[in-house]
Amino acid sequence: MSPIVVTNPPRADREVVGALAGYGVATVHEAQGRRGLLGSHIRPRQRGVRVAGTAVTVTVAPGDNTTIGVAVEQCGEGDVLVVVPTAPCDMGYFGDLLATTLKVRGVRGLVIEAGVRDVADLNEMGFPVWSKAVSAEGCGKGNLGDVNVPIGIAGRIVHPGDVILADDDGVVVVPRLEAADVLAASQAREEKEAKARARYLAGEIALDVNNMRPLLEQAGVRYVDYEDYRKEQGL
Amino acid sequence: MSPIVVTNPPRADREVVGALAGYGVATVHEAQGRRGLLGSHIRPRQRGVRVAGTAVTVTVAPGDNTTIGVAVEQCGEGDVLVVVPTAPCDMGYFGDLLATTLKVRGVRGLVIEAGVRDVADLNEMGFPVWSKAVSAEGCGKGNLGDVNVPIGIAGRIVHPGDVILADDDGVVVVPRLEAADVLAASQAREEKEAKARARYLAGEIALDVNNMRPLLEQAGVRYVDYEDYRKEQGL
Amino acid sequence: MSPIVVTNPPRADREVVGALAGYGVATVHEAQGRRGLLGSHIRPRQRGVRVAGTAVTVTVAPGDNTTIGVAVEQCGEGDVLVVVPTAPCDMGYFGDLLATTLKVRGVRGLVIEAGVRDVADLNEMGFPVWSKAVSAEGCGKGNLGDVNVPIGIAGRIVHPGDVILADDDGVVVVPRLEAADVLAASQAREEKEAKARARYLAGEIALDVNNMRPLLEQAGVRYVDYEDYRKEQGL
Amino acid sequence: MSPIVVTNPPRADREVVGALAGYGVATVHEAQGRRGLLGSHIRPRQRGVRVAGTAVTVTVAPGDNTTIGVAVEQCGEGDVLVVVPTAPCDMGYFGDLLATTLKVRGVRGLVIEAGVRDVADLNEMGFPVWSKAVSAEGCGKGNLGDVNVPIGIAGRIVHPGDVILADDDGVVVVPRLEAADVLAASQAREEKEAKARARYLAGEIALDVNNMRPLLEQAGVRYVDYEDYRKEQGL
Amino acid sequence: MSPIVVTNPPRADREVVGALAGYGVATVHEAQGRRGLLGSHIRPRQRGVRVAGTAVTVTVAPGDNTTIGVAVEQCGEGDVLVVVPTAPCDMGYFGDLLATTLKVRGVRGLVIEAGVRDVADLNEMGFPVWSKAVSAEGCGKGNLGDVNVPIGIAGRIVHPGDVILADDDGVVVVPRLEAADVLAASQAREEKEAKARARYLAGEIALDVNNMRPLLEQAGVRYVDYEDYRKEQGL
Amino acid sequence: MSPIVVTNPPRADREVVGALAGYGVATVHEAQGRRGLLGSHIRPRQRGVRVAGTAVTVTVAPGDNTTIGVAVEQCGEGDVLVVVPTAPCDMGYFGDLLATTLKVRGVRGLVIEAGVRDVADLNEMGFPVWSKAVSAEGCGKGNLGDVNVPIGIAGRIVHPGDVILADDDGVVVVPRLEAADVLAASQAREEKEAKARARYLAGEIALDVNNMRPLLEQAGVRYVDYEDYRKEQGL
Repeated sequence: MSPIVVTNPPRADREVVGALAGYGVATVHEAQGRRGLLGSHIRPRQRGVRVAGTAVTVTVAPGDNTTIGVAVEQCGEGDVLVVVPTAPCDMGYFGDLLATTLKVRGVRGLVIEAGVRDVADLNEMGFPVWSKAVSAEGCGKGNLGDVNVPIGIAGRIVHPGDVILADDDGVVVVPRLEAADVLAASQAREEKEAKARARYLAGEIALDVNNMRPLLEQAGVRYVDYEDYRKEQGL
Repeated sequence: MSPIVVTNPPRADREVVGALAGYGVATVHEAQGRRGLLGSHIRPRQRGVRVAGTAVTVTVAPGDNTTIGVAVEQCGEGDVLVVVPTAPCDMGYFGDLLATTLKVRGVRGLVIEAGVRDVADLNEMGFPVWSKAVSAEGCGKGNLGDVNVPIGIAGRIVHPGDVILADDDGVVVVPRLEAADVLAASQAREEKEAKARARYLAGEIALDVNNMRPLLEQAGVRYVDYEDYRKEQGL
Repeated sequence: MSPIVVTNPPRADREVVGALAGYGVATVHEAQGRRGLLGSHIRPRQRGVRVAGTAVTVTVAPGDNTTIGVAVEQCGEGDVLVVVPTAPCDMGYFGDLLATTLKVRGVRGLVIEAGVRDVADLNEMGFPVWSKAVSAEGCGKGNLGDVNVPIGIAGRIVHPGDVILADDDGVVVVPRLEAADVLAASQAREEKEAKARARYLAGEIALDVNNMRPLLEQAGVRYVDYEDYRKEQGL
Repeated sequence: MSPIVVTNPPRADREVVGALAGYGVATVHEAQGRRGLLGSHIRPRQRGVRVAGTAVTVTVAPGDNTTIGVAVEQCGEGDVLVVVPTAPCDMGYFGDLLATTLKVRGVRGLVIEAGVRDVADLNEMGFPVWSKAVSAEGCGKGNLGDVNVPIGIAGRIVHPGDVILADDDGVVVVPRLEAADVLAASQAREEKEAKARARYLAGEIALDVNNMRPLLEQAGVRYVDYEDYRKEQGL
Repeated sequence: MSPIVVTNPPRADREVVGALAGYGVATVHEAQGRRGLLGSHIRPRQRGVRVAGTAVTVTVAPGDNTTIGVAVEQCGEGDVLVVVPTAPCDMGYFGDLLATTLKVRGVRGLVIEAGVRDVADLNEMGFPVWSKAVSAEGCGKGNLGDVNVPIGIAGRIVHPGDVILADDDGVVVVPRLEAADVLAASQAREEKEAKARARYLAGEIALDVNNMRPLLEQAGVRYVDYEDYRKEQGL
Repeated sequence: MSPIVVTNPPRADREVVGALAGYGVATVHEAQGRRGLLGSHIRPRQRGVRVAGTAVTVTVAPGDNTTIGVAVEQCGEGDVLVVVPTAPCDMGYFGDLLATTLKVRGVRGLVIEAGVRDVADLNEMGFPVWSKAVSAEGCGKGNLGDVNVPIGIAGRIVHPGDVILADDDGVVVVPRLEAADVLAASQAREEKEAKARARYLAGEIALDVNNMRPLLEQAGVRYVDYEDYRKEQGL
């Protein structure tokens, strides 16, 4: 099976992607029924940054970043590069030169289940990265993976053109065809949360806001004053 | 065994707690004979923050944060919420809504042997968190644990009302009844360290400040010039 | 075998060390043929700092930092302390007092395959640390290791007097006698990268800059339009 | 605070302990409402062995096993030694000599949140161990912890005299005063499972045995034939 | 989005699956171009067992194994159950009762990116399991995932009906439609290896068998006698 | 710097190596003053096997096992292959074909800070392996490391010709020139342990055998009867 580069995959609607960037990863993950969060070992390498874009997917041979170079050509304005090695190998597949070439093309960021390097430079140039590791260990060249085929990364399936949303909480993937629905659900969720937040700020608590006291009663929760508990336990 | 909520446990003396906040986790941990440090996998999710407060303890069912909602009602000014799942499960049990409701009540922070989410919001609103993980994966509802019973967390036992002190170095628990003694010992330790620091700044070194040269002699330490060592080793 | 302290080991040339500080860890690691990077579990405890210095090597007994105190006396202007316990034990072997005494002597920083504490103080006083862990758990005294003997740390061998270069990407060791050659190679590499960066900023991509298209052809890479791919896979 | 050795703590009833040994860790853990399972990083160092006994608790200084020697004197027929270092340090605190001395006294096994060594000898002599690690790195002497005080280990609190049950699935602690109740609940659970097992062997499935189909209906589960699913998803 | 159970997905050809069971995971993984190996954190819970079967895929809510019960009904002779939680949560989702019900139906084994329990019973009854963890911590009921939809597990995508091959080396997935080709390639590879093995047994070495000496020459490998090396390095 | 293969390094004395095989890793590690134990993440892939041999050292490029093939030619009767990748990458660098070729040459086993595969075959053919991981993921070819140069592996330095001793407890390295001394010290230690074992079997305990009661007194250990402790603590 020879390596394959799929060109011109359909992308999620640009306006929807832009609107999703207004919501946090946690909100969007909830809004789509908790189906798209990548494993929390994929961590941001900067603070306070959120990006949304459309996935260009890449598989790389372990310890070889040649295919990222191939993928650059398939990237455009508004994309996010999503990279997974075909076997776990946490070397540094990505640094400031690749970031430069991607930034020039309008790429929003990188998600990689492996290592990156030149992180000080990446932070300075404002190219955000979510990675499994930081490693200055560079890669070899010559072994090729695929570009823009479906990939399994950090417990999820990502198709080219899917929406990738990433912030300090992690990374979530939203399937291209569900993006509009998830956007609507995110908006609804945020509005509901805003109302709850207002009540919490006014001093109410979730037991009442969410009407949870019957659930407690049903579970047989016992409220015991400390002095009684102490006697009960022979303390 | 039905879930239990213990109300009105005695808290450590508020003034003592306030005074302990003037010392670092490392100092206080030493001062109480190295008995209360939580495992170092509990990490701060902000930088440069220190809090001290009295523990409200919570056990949660894995993947279910209902009991945190129950515990909120038992929290007041000067408390720190301390949460442990009954089985390891690193989902996001805590986010900005719960933080809002706790902050309104004067709670100082959260310590949790599991995941949190909305970390950018938590940082912005200034609600400090020490957690094992960050995860945008939300919890279910309906399974209940206990509030204000003794818990085992990160290698230590925490009783409700104990002092929790947390900073960039980690988290330490001081038993309620020992708090005053530990405060005195912390003060003594700090004074001793201040004197040592002054001598170090003046160029003295610990071998002399702490009178350690006899120990070296006793251990038979050999000082060998590099050239002699090189010959000795056949290098 | 009694503990040994080797005195006056030759250090790498000070000017070369200073010049190496102008290059990143990733660059220097590449320049010396990828032979000196320490394992990526050794992480910076600050951001945006780079130091270069000559190694003073230390082995400590697990949970005992006495030998660091001994090593202080062997440290001078421009050194970096490199510490490894003889068995893995992630307690806090180093804090602000030791940092004070080292800073006074002109030591540039610490690399340790174990834990450190007082990290807020270390950051404030500007003493940079690369460590495996943060732990407020203090050490015992009385068991001694060696100073300025060759050590195995994080997958590499470090000899006293070798160059240690550390930044946000990690830590690299350059053998003393190779330092000048590695400096020259680093300069050459940086110049080559600067040229590439200029071309990338102008919109060229690595496939062309590095003349990689023949390699792709040789590997039999197939470019397939998404619509064709979809039909091919029966999607 | 000087080290303390508590003598003659009450033990759980010997007959109850013996009867609990007839049930698996999973069964007993369920029977007591999922409150006592130690973290799954505590692993058996043999296969196919189950022991039940009464806890003699020990805290050791990191890298120092002196207190285990002290605890031996407090151990008797039917006990299980439960050891936790006051700071994580995975050296080998226990080997064949300590096992010999314990076996002579009728101790059933060891649970330790750290390392052990001589595992081939331990297996040969039939002294079972549940540990966090295997390490041939030996300990120092001279720093003391406590014996028979409550300890926090692997996420749980263990009091001296509590029941420790351990097998291939892990380790569970049953509080001394709850042992009889947990035994009864274990018996009831096992009987219920035996009935279910018979039905499963006869070909029935849990959906029917546990009457779960209404739950599925309520959750809105859709059953879709593959061909329809394929069309629906545009595959 | 309500949970979905896809029924009657096409399975890989039974004879091909049976024939693949004659080859090791390493061989088959190589034969299909290194595209299907699951991450090595999925470990066998027995020794010396190999199974091949067709995947029935399951997603479970974290800490809830209800969907495994649902999936049982979709399993038949020759299947392998493949389970992934929608968020990492290493509790015990599977034990001897579920194994009983699956064995009765002719299911060959279980692959799960989470925990299992009753491992002694599973070994005794001969139901093989590859899992991320062992945990006696049982699951809740009531939250549903999907059955027989494509899943992302341990870095790979598994579709229902794909071939799952598992042995002491790990687990590999072979897409249903590629199974026959991979079988042929495995046979070819094994034959080639048998020839090489015979030459190795006769004392030849890979440098000659695989004609690698020119590669060494090209890489500029220097062969240096130890005495010369010692002088060269100043040792 | 081109790759280097050092030929004919001096080996530790064969008789000494053979005699060391009579002692366990823990004993020998103690006997040489705790200076040579490799990190405990290097685990045996079989049970109950001990080997001793002389090190042939190999560095491999990450994900590339070409150099192991080169090293085979440098191996002879009584050697142990010791392999470390120049960057962490846990693929399967070694399987049954390489084991065959080594066994034919009289090599005793493999120690590798990375992954191996074909473990069932390796067990069956009786070629023992200590590795960091098991992975069926095969390696690439073409990038070369060095043979028989000093290497840093799992926290230790190994020189070609050093003694490698490995069993169920792990792996220890003994420097070639110290082997005879360490053998003598091992014999002495074993004799001392045999005497202690006899006393333990007769019912004595370490407190008396090692004359530790004065140490306890000095440490101020308090022995308190449980009933008094209970009152003291207000339990």
